[in-house]
Amino acid sequence: MGNEQLEELRKQLDEVNMQLMDLINERARLVQEIGKVKSSQGINRFDPVRERKMLNLIAENNKGPFETGTLQHIFKQIFKASLELQEDDHRKALLV
Amino acid sequence: MGNEQLEELRKQLDEVNMQLMDLINERARLVQEIGKVKSSQGINRFDPVRERKMLNLIAENNKGPFETGTLQHIFKQIFKASLELQEDDHRKALLV
Repeated sequence: MGNEQLEELRKQLDEVNMQLMDLINERARLVQEIGKVKSSQGINRFDPVRERKMLNLIAENNKGPFETGTLQHIFKQIFKASLELQEDDHRKALLV
Repeated sequence: MGNEQLEELRKQLDEVNMQLMDLINERARLVQEIGKVKSSQGINRFDPVRERKMLNLIAENNKGPFETGTLQHIFKQIFKASLELQEDDHRKALLV
């Protein structure tokens, strides 16, 4: 019984991983769009106040089981990667 | 025009953030279940081969814009946090 149960749970985990990957990439596309709008307005891409607001939203809405601090740490990694992606886009735009 | 567009994109980003948070927590619940099954079978919770397989699945299915290495880095943070959550559950189980 145990092995079948484990296999079934792992299959579900693989599916959730793929959904997560797609959603993280969808988020990245949104951030790229935001970067373009900001760039056209001459606004700086890094906005610590906006990041803080997003982290606060997580604190307000987290139902667990992860602790808010853990989720915020993961999101900070995603923010950092997103900023690097925007900077790549910006560099490419300058080279055009 | 630009500011409204920015506000709309940010609203979408907030929604994606909340979906991401829910999905990361859903993943954590699955990992907790897997931890319980493994625990009942006396299997070690940390499984580097299984982690490698999950990272390979990301490499095979990533359509961008994030590079595979970036996504794998984010997932490694999620794996690490999940393992810590399983260890917390295990400690609590021992204390019962």
